[in-house]
Amino acid sequence: MSDLRQRLFAELDSIRLIDPHSHIEPKTAASKTLADILGYHYYTELIHSAGMPRVEIEDPGLDPKEKVRRLVARIEPLRNTVQYSWLLELARTFFDFPTDEHLTPANWETLYDTAAKRMAQPDWEQQVLDRTKLDAVFLTNNFDDPLTDFDTKRYIPCLRTDDLVFHLSKAAVRQRLEKATDTSIKDIATLRSAIGRLFMHFSSKGARACAISLPPTFAPTKVAPEAAGTALTALLRSTAQNTSPETLANFVFWTLAEFCAEFKLPFDLMIGVNRAVYRDGVYQGQDLYDSRVSLIQYQELFNAFPQVVFPISVLASVTNQELVSYAWIFPNVVTNGHWWYSNTPAYIEHDAAARLEAVPQTKQIGYYSDAYKLEFCLPKFAMYKRILAKLLAERFVLERGWTEDQALDLGRRILRGNVEQIFNM
Amino acid sequence: MSDLRQRLFAELDSIRLIDPHSHIEPKTAASKTLADILGYHYYTELIHSAGMPRVEIEDPGLDPKEKVRRLVARIEPLRNTVQYSWLLELARTFFDFPTDEHLTPANWETLYDTAAKRMAQPDWEQQVLDRTKLDAVFLTNNFDDPLTDFDTKRYIPCLRTDDLVFHLSKAAVRQRLEKATDTSIKDIATLRSAIGRLFMHFSSKGARACAISLPPTFAPTKVAPEAAGTALTALLRSTAQNTSPETLANFVFWTLAEFCAEFKLPFDLMIGVNRAVYRDGVYQGQDLYDSRVSLIQYQELFNAFPQVVFPISVLASVTNQELVSYAWIFPNVVTNGHWWYSNTPAYIEHDAAARLEAVPQTKQIGYYSDAYKLEFCLPKFAMYKRILAKLLAERFVLERGWTEDQALDLGRRILRGNVEQIFNM
Amino acid sequence: MSDLRQRLFAELDSIRLIDPHSHIEPKTAASKTLADILGYHYYTELIHSAGMPRVEIEDPGLDPKEKVRRLVARIEPLRNTVQYSWLLELARTFFDFPTDEHLTPANWETLYDTAAKRMAQPDWEQQVLDRTKLDAVFLTNNFDDPLTDFDTKRYIPCLRTDDLVFHLSKAAVRQRLEKATDTSIKDIATLRSAIGRLFMHFSSKGARACAISLPPTFAPTKVAPEAAGTALTALLRSTAQNTSPETLANFVFWTLAEFCAEFKLPFDLMIGVNRAVYRDGVYQGQDLYDSRVSLIQYQELFNAFPQVVFPISVLASVTNQELVSYAWIFPNVVTNGHWWYSNTPAYIEHDAAARLEAVPQTKQIGYYSDAYKLEFCLPKFAMYKRILAKLLAERFVLERGWTEDQALDLGRRILRGNVEQIFNM
Repeated sequence: MSDLRQRLFAELDSIRLIDPHSHIEPKTAASKTLADILGYHYYTELIHSAGMPRVEIEDPGLDPKEKVRRLVARIEPLRNTVQYSWLLELARTFFDFPTDEHLTPANWETLYDTAAKRMAQPDWEQQVLDRTKLDAVFLTNNFDDPLTDFDTKRYIPCLRTDDLVFHLSKAAVRQRLEKATDTSIKDIATLRSAIGRLFMHFSSKGARACAISLPPTFAPTKVAPEAAGTALTALLRSTAQNTSPETLANFVFWTLAEFCAEFKLPFDLMIGVNRAVYRDGVYQGQDLYDSRVSLIQYQELFNAFPQVVFPISVLASVTNQELVSYAWIFPNVVTNGHWWYSNTPAYIEHDAAARLEAVPQTKQIGYYSDAYKLEFCLPKFAMYKRILAKLLAERFVLERGWTEDQALDLGRRILRGNVEQIFNM
Repeated sequence: MSDLRQRLFAELDSIRLIDPHSHIEPKTAASKTLADILGYHYYTELIHSAGMPRVEIEDPGLDPKEKVRRLVARIEPLRNTVQYSWLLELARTFFDFPTDEHLTPANWETLYDTAAKRMAQPDWEQQVLDRTKLDAVFLTNNFDDPLTDFDTKRYIPCLRTDDLVFHLSKAAVRQRLEKATDTSIKDIATLRSAIGRLFMHFSSKGARACAISLPPTFAPTKVAPEAAGTALTALLRSTAQNTSPETLANFVFWTLAEFCAEFKLPFDLMIGVNRAVYRDGVYQGQDLYDSRVSLIQYQELFNAFPQVVFPISVLASVTNQELVSYAWIFPNVVTNGHWWYSNTPAYIEHDAAARLEAVPQTKQIGYYSDAYKLEFCLPKFAMYKRILAKLLAERFVLERGWTEDQALDLGRRILRGNVEQIFNM
Repeated sequence: MSDLRQRLFAELDSIRLIDPHSHIEPKTAASKTLADILGYHYYTELIHSAGMPRVEIEDPGLDPKEKVRRLVARIEPLRNTVQYSWLLELARTFFDFPTDEHLTPANWETLYDTAAKRMAQPDWEQQVLDRTKLDAVFLTNNFDDPLTDFDTKRYIPCLRTDDLVFHLSKAAVRQRLEKATDTSIKDIATLRSAIGRLFMHFSSKGARACAISLPPTFAPTKVAPEAAGTALTALLRSTAQNTSPETLANFVFWTLAEFCAEFKLPFDLMIGVNRAVYRDGVYQGQDLYDSRVSLIQYQELFNAFPQVVFPISVLASVTNQELVSYAWIFPNVVTNGHWWYSNTPAYIEHDAAARLEAVPQTKQIGYYSDAYKLEFCLPKFAMYKRILAKLLAERFVLERGWTEDQALDLGRRILRGNVEQIFNM
């Protein structure tokens, strides 16, 4: 079986990829130093969790090399974690880090210097893309991103809308919206028009998705325009916080879905995160969740927008079965990757197995990197491909008597084909 | 291990079965054409979910052969699903469908014609029963089913009570009840008496269970007769909908439990379904669920009726651990099969493993088919038996050093013996 | 792989243990007869669940030998359970019970007599400790336990606080508190002072933890002293039950956390149990749970007490992913063992796998016995070590290419090293 799994992995690993969700900055897609790598929140938050004070990590003006030195000095407790294994795989693949060594105070500097040298090569970004077999990467763009000065075929714009839905009560957000759309927001009509202009702009730049992350309490409903108008008026007149933020949040969310229909954009829903639960956590290391969330909260949305595809990520593995069932019943619900706290092997294996056996093969997007730097796409996708090879070997070839070719066809769809189909590429 | 598992499967596969829950129609138990097979909601809903418009599937007056042609033309996206594997196993076993072929526009007609010929044989039903080694099948009978003109030893009546509990506010349901019981329902006493007559009727026809499916919000409580009386009076006087449907639902539900005690009938509870979530779904393909349900909601019921056995099915795998724990503590709680959205291998394996190691072996009903047509009992039970063989091999023979005979004794109880014991057969 | 797993198990099995949570009575730590073993609630509740009336089990004044005879006569339905496997492993290890026999009416008396003879040996307790390689065992002490007349290095005191938090409205509990602390409780200040005296007492006796079990509805919040004072006054003046028990419960809980900070004691939280759900259950066999609980309920606590370590146990496996995530983010959250209804192999394997790959290795306490009698530590830890060996073999050595020594280092930390570190031993 081990041989079978390795053969399947080798084939899956040869597939050219499109990464359907990341936080890559297209103008600084690759890393400049190892501090960009070790500064990823997975490392800073885990090292902080294991005992390193936040101030030592987030010391302002900290030199990148000193930052890496400090983090490596406290990284030993992370050796068992899969996140640490991404780091070693990345270091071995890109920077010749020895196969049998851990990252320690004794060897980090060699790695740092080697990495700095490679990263300084003018074609470093291209080298990483080539080695990762990455054809394109979806971005996470602020709604007022001009989307200029980068190759939107390689770095595909995606309209991220958390601010619009959940922070419109902040004057700064409204000002950004007014500026980006050259619209004075006075009422529901102008608000709607401004949002429409965002879609026009993003669409014209080749955006392939609208996306949002949602707290576990959110349950979208259609709001009557009058109610939304009243809420907006109250907000605009007051210098205080919006008194009915939920009404406006629902209005904006529903409006986004309407524009997704109009512009034929899939609407990525990332369901379940509570922000800033650990208030003294490191940057990007404060969010957690309440796993008591249900897709029944999205019942009205899925019924109201049959023409919009909703690629859905759930934060907690306990929600995955609902996702499988909703994707099995609703034509417009698609499973999307393994998100954040569920992006570890035990949960991926359990969740992916359930999807592979009950969701039509055309409705599953296997994986996305969620990465901030290009170098992470390789080890993260590799982790997923190893698990996918295991599932295909055990559950399809051995259990169900599939040929290896049949299993690989399924793998190729999940990994690549569906990304192209579902996002109309 | 592979050999061990195959040996165990072969033995489990030789056991003669009683299927303790199905939707078989006893007078048309077997299929007439392949449209009866492909018309099973698992195929229509998955094919619809994968893109086929409902109107093309549910076109009224559609010829069976044309229906099959249309469905097969859109079935390719389902090839990975376990439901599709049931279809292939069924076609291979009963209709000589080639082992290495998928169902395609090129070969469906041959299969259709072969199936039609076989199904037209006068002893087709018996052939299916023999091949499946099925001794008896539990039905799902409407409360006003006369239960006549079929062999109630082979097709065992089961009193299904969803309508009584949740739809008594509908005049049509009350009229059916009055007619079936020759009772004029004027108050709580006559309502109770009518329900008692249903039990007498079903009991006299050899019914072996009362059953109901329940929404995740339901939490049965005992209602004072006065409150129930008030609610019933309000309902009977008004032409409008019942103003306190929950009071009456609870009264009827509790009354059913009382009659289960009196008539010594197990009360099958199928917990967790939300009906008509996807309003435009195909027939029987609209229901989903909210996995936020707890057996704590049934605390009062389990305490109040120690003499009633409650075989319990849960819709979501996340509820399975509660089911295991409640069956481990409450003498009257029994685990029952793997229901609907949890009836896929990854969930069966996880859920059955937990049951096998913590619930007394006399309190587990391994599996039921939930089938609408006899032909499905074979592939569905086969799926379960393969998983059971895996669990017995890995977790009992290899992990715990059991002999194969000991493991098979456990398997026989789970598959057959407990059905006879628990349903007093 | 089988050989690998056995090698790893053998090494893990050679580790000397500290059991970080039990209900051992230090003056009667070992059993006197087999009735102490078979009287463990796991057996009485499962045998009752399988059909034996409670009165036959709890017959007052029942002779120990007769009790064992009765229980063995009804134990056959439990043979599949892991709890029964603990019993056989214990009987084989300590009492030469034959490897290939079940416990039956034909052989129980020999076992009973052999056990009685061994248990009567003056060094029986030491024999059990030696055979189990147990260096020390944490206790569960009532807050008014004098902690005298036993070796507190071997049997480590632990301040259990359920009564203080949830039953202070009972006069008997307040009287116990007043007596134990020589304090007259008149107001918030004297209540606080009394609690402080408990910590002083326990600390002086070498206590290493404060502990509490919590219902799924509990969500600790800081209560203003005035509100707590009002609630306490109302309670003290009235002969009736406390009118706002939640206010006082929260006040006491928060005060406990404050003293944990002051006395540098970890605060074990055992989250999720509903008491007395099955009212007619056997002794200690009445509690169940509602798995709809979230660690988000503890958000304020974790933020407010960064200097207190919270080793957390969750009752339901569905809460384990939250535990993993909270331990990954919060420096003061530590994963602790596999509790009660989650202490069965299928759940341990799923839950431990997730912890091993995402929680820093210094923040995981692998296992505790929760035992009432010393003899159970061996089979319960053995169960865990077998699963740990499996996870280390499959997920670290085979999947991630670790050496066996690296895997064993992780195992040693989880099993022993972290207990010493986290509880400051």
